Amino acid sequence: MATYNPVGASLRKFIASLRQAKSRRAERLFVLEGTRAVLDTIPFFEVVHLVATSQWLELNGGRLPKSVPAPLVAKNDEMERMSSLSTPQGVLAVCRMPEPVAFNGVADGELVLALDRVQDPGNLGTIMRVADWFGVTRILASADTVDVFNPKVVQATMGAIARVQVIYCENLAATLEEAATDVYGTFLDGGNIYDAPLSRGGIVVMGNEGNGISAEVERVVSHRIKIPPFPPQRATVESLNVSMATGIVLAEFRRRI
Amino acid sequence: MATYNPVGASLRKFIASLRQAKSRRAERLFVLEGTRAVLDTIPFFEVVHLVATSQWLELNGGRLPKSVPAPLVAKNDEMERMSSLSTPQGVLAVCRMPEPVAFNGVADGELVLALDRVQDPGNLGTIMRVADWFGVTRILASADTVDVFNPKVVQATMGAIARVQVIYCENLAATLEEAATDVYGTFLDGGNIYDAPLSRGGIVVMGNEGNGISAEVERVVSHRIKIPPFPPQRATVESLNVSMATGIVLAEFRRRI
Repeated sequence: MATYNPVGASLRKFIASLRQAKSRRAERLFVLEGTRAVLDTIPFFEVVHLVATSQWLELNGGRLPKSVPAPLVAKNDEMERMSSLSTPQGVLAVCRMPEPVAFNGVADGELVLALDRVQDPGNLGTIMRVADWFGVTRILASADTVDVFNPKVVQATMGAIARVQVIYCENLAATLEEAATDVYGTFLDGGNIYDAPLSRGGIVVMGNEGNGISAEVERVVSHRIKIPPFPPQRATVESLNVSMATGIVLAEFRRRI
Repeated sequence: MATYNPVGASLRKFIASLRQAKSRRAERLFVLEGTRAVLDTIPFFEVVHLVATSQWLELNGGRLPKSVPAPLVAKNDEMERMSSLSTPQGVLAVCRMPEPVAFNGVADGELVLALDRVQDPGNLGTIMRVADWFGVTRILASADTVDVFNPKVVQATMGAIARVQVIYCENLAATLEEAATDVYGTFLDGGNIYDAPLSRGGIVVMGNEGNGISAEVERVVSHRIKIPPFPPQRATVESLNVSMATGIVLAEFRRRI
């Protein structure tokens, strides 16, 4: 049986502080939590600290890659105070954020997603997960889109954070315009997506939960589309959720290929 | 300015108790919370009590239908103790559950959804919302599917609870078999949905978050389908979330019509 050092009080406090966006930005670190997330995802990030309960280590310690630092042991109540989950799962990894990259344009035939002020962490995580399923590996995001390293986003991606890159843009409208490609956006008065010509590649913009796509970004949308309700002429009370709409739009782009 | 009676301590306690499934079942009552939910949805249910803060009533009291009982006033901290939201919105309605109905088979051309042990309240709510968008008005559910009147489900439906009926079945497999119609189910080894013949009506089964469709229900599925990832031959690490998969499958059924 391996023996491990306990996690000290100041490191515990430091890890808890990473729940705040400000601390994450300053330190360029974020936290991965949970058995699946940690085991599946840590090979893709530089792990700075790994903290687990002794029960977790007994069960899973042998499945950790050799490259991670020696685990530190925390008691259950210490784990709870560090964790952002309501039910901590016995393990967390403090990882280094990848260096931010600049967007260098859409590759030939590449489908890119763009998010204009998506606010809800669960939505961003779900969008990254469905983007991953449909082979979209780059997402442009307006500067005021929720932080991709927010623990709720990381959790909701179910590991897709390792495969899908979110690139924050100072000025999303300008970035879309410079890309000089087909830019699709969903609008209540858009054309039925199933009747619309869709190119193999291009950029699909999704808007804010309450307000949709901003006027600024709307100006650079070249194709206005809409997911029709059923029956199509129906006046519906509620719109689709933004992550659901993203999945249905991506499915249709991929179906056409 | 109208004056209202305060909500008494025992009624507050009673309302708080409706957060438990057991109390909801015993009383056949459930709670709707939030301004949008209450104003949009109460016309569809019998409202037994309406409780709001005086600020809420000043702003919105005039928008309440005449048919609801006279509102009772609660202080902010009282509202917090009754509410199941982390940030209560100043209003809640205690409503009577509709009488449970039996499933009388699929109407000609009707598309029905069936849920086999969906556990997460957010997923059920999201599924009801997207079902509503795609004109699916009846959902069959296994007896062990999460309670549709769970406050998190009610919240996540965004009003669709007024238009989509969830019918719990003692034995879902038997109900599907008796329906004697096309039964579609998603499986990792199913056929590409975009190549599969889909009938206009029938039943689409979605399975549990972790384990998919149970062996019992699988036995009565007549068409095994799959949403292909992109590229289709790719070995993906993570499956789609069940509510996302439901939306994409329903979109394809409706596109074909």
